[in-house]
Amino acid sequence: MNFIDKLGAAWTRNDSLLCVGLDPDLARLPAHLRDAPDGIARFCKAIIDATADLACAFKPQIAYFAALGAEQQLEEICAYLRERYPEIALILDAKRGDIGATAHQYAREAFDRYGADAVTVNPYMGFDSVEPYMQWKDRGVIVLCRTSNAGGSDLQFLDVGGQPLYQHVARLVAEKWNVNGQCALVVGATFPEELAQVRRIVGEMPLLVPGIGAQGGDIEATVRAGRTAGGAGMMINSSRAILFATPEEGEDFAAAARRVAMETRDAINRYRAV
Amino acid sequence: MNFIDKLGAAWTRNDSLLCVGLDPDLARLPAHLRDAPDGIARFCKAIIDATADLACAFKPQIAYFAALGAEQQLEEICAYLRERYPEIALILDAKRGDIGATAHQYAREAFDRYGADAVTVNPYMGFDSVEPYMQWKDRGVIVLCRTSNAGGSDLQFLDVGGQPLYQHVARLVAEKWNVNGQCALVVGATFPEELAQVRRIVGEMPLLVPGIGAQGGDIEATVRAGRTAGGAGMMINSSRAILFATPEEGEDFAAAARRVAMETRDAINRYRAV
Repeated sequence: MNFIDKLGAAWTRNDSLLCVGLDPDLARLPAHLRDAPDGIARFCKAIIDATADLACAFKPQIAYFAALGAEQQLEEICAYLRERYPEIALILDAKRGDIGATAHQYAREAFDRYGADAVTVNPYMGFDSVEPYMQWKDRGVIVLCRTSNAGGSDLQFLDVGGQPLYQHVARLVAEKWNVNGQCALVVGATFPEELAQVRRIVGEMPLLVPGIGAQGGDIEATVRAGRTAGGAGMMINSSRAILFATPEEGEDFAAAARRVAMETRDAINRYRAV
Repeated sequence: MNFIDKLGAAWTRNDSLLCVGLDPDLARLPAHLRDAPDGIARFCKAIIDATADLACAFKPQIAYFAALGAEQQLEEICAYLRERYPEIALILDAKRGDIGATAHQYAREAFDRYGADAVTVNPYMGFDSVEPYMQWKDRGVIVLCRTSNAGGSDLQFLDVGGQPLYQHVARLVAEKWNVNGQCALVVGATFPEELAQVRRIVGEMPLLVPGIGAQGGDIEATVRAGRTAGGAGMMINSSRAILFATPEEGEDFAAAARRVAMETRDAINRYRAV
């Protein structure tokens, strides 16, 4: 099953638009895992087991592994996801962007080495830096469009022929780059009005939406702005708010993560109906 | 010594603006190294030993290592460079771009794990995605501006207030982002007129210039367009043309790489005088 279909099936199966971001910041791991040689993998697997029936996707952020030389633990986590939860989409958040021959190597990393269903990429170097990923026809290519950070506006909000650059990128991807129907876009939750603009431009294309939870985006406004006519169309990401949820009495970190993931999924679902 | 000073010293010491790109495409390695478990590291070390007195910088492309799970060989190559050739700048070509907390992890990867003197980054997510790298005050941050691939024009040539986006980026970096004097720019060799425009905008800022050699850029036009008043200011990169030089009779791959590196350095030097 290809990425877009798998995602659609996961939306229905788990009644969820929630994407759980795996950003295992070592300093914030429980003490007994922080010092264990495979602590990151054990932490992520516990989070995965606790939330897999509540999510449509998991999104490991490769930077947290790369900083520590923990690629082998990332491989282990990805293999675990593919074996135990093959119905949940696995998105490698890598935001790669390079010339064709190099992009091909990054595609091999994401799709062959880690077995990801989709990878995030950067559009700054243009179509031929994105096209190599599309040779893996069953995988997804999620292009940065409008990001949730403050500096996102520095380039993305520049006026290009009467529209901001991020809208131009949305149009480029929807009208030209998405030749095999594999594409999705990253559009942050911090600007619901802009999310709505992108939704109008791209039709049913899935949107990966970071910025709720720790980054402060409002769930109701986000869902109303980004949903499709079918009340879906989004992978709404939460990382730190779930991974590092403060346990209530008697809870461990995984139970706390499950509680917050369920609250987040349910909060999203309250506003899905059009 | 910080990156900018180290680069300046290397230009003088080796009378060279040549940057040797380390893109170890496994399929093109000599047969006896292709199948060896540490073949990539041995190949790169042989190239390094053969060209270190002819170069101002080495630039490993991390994608070639990531595709193969060969991060440990990249660590080994970087350690070798820092120990044997500490006077040559080590640039990690990674083109990272992500929000602040994640960018901090990528900075740890480039600067602490691999010990790079500089890293390439993508500007699409704005200043706060670039700023975390600048906390390593002695390192360099090389921002993508105008890339040498065909698709580079898709976004970089869009008109932004009367100038193409890549010139806007050049101005942003030169006038706002370069707060500690650590920045450089990537400007491809395929468009010498555009290289000249960027040079006029950024003054003495170093430019990393890919696109000569296998990518077809013209050396004379490139050097005349990009040189500073002092006849330097550039790291002119060649990867495949040097790494996979065709040996002449009696040569091995490293000797062939040395011959092509010397020819390239000398060709560059013919046009450095202003």
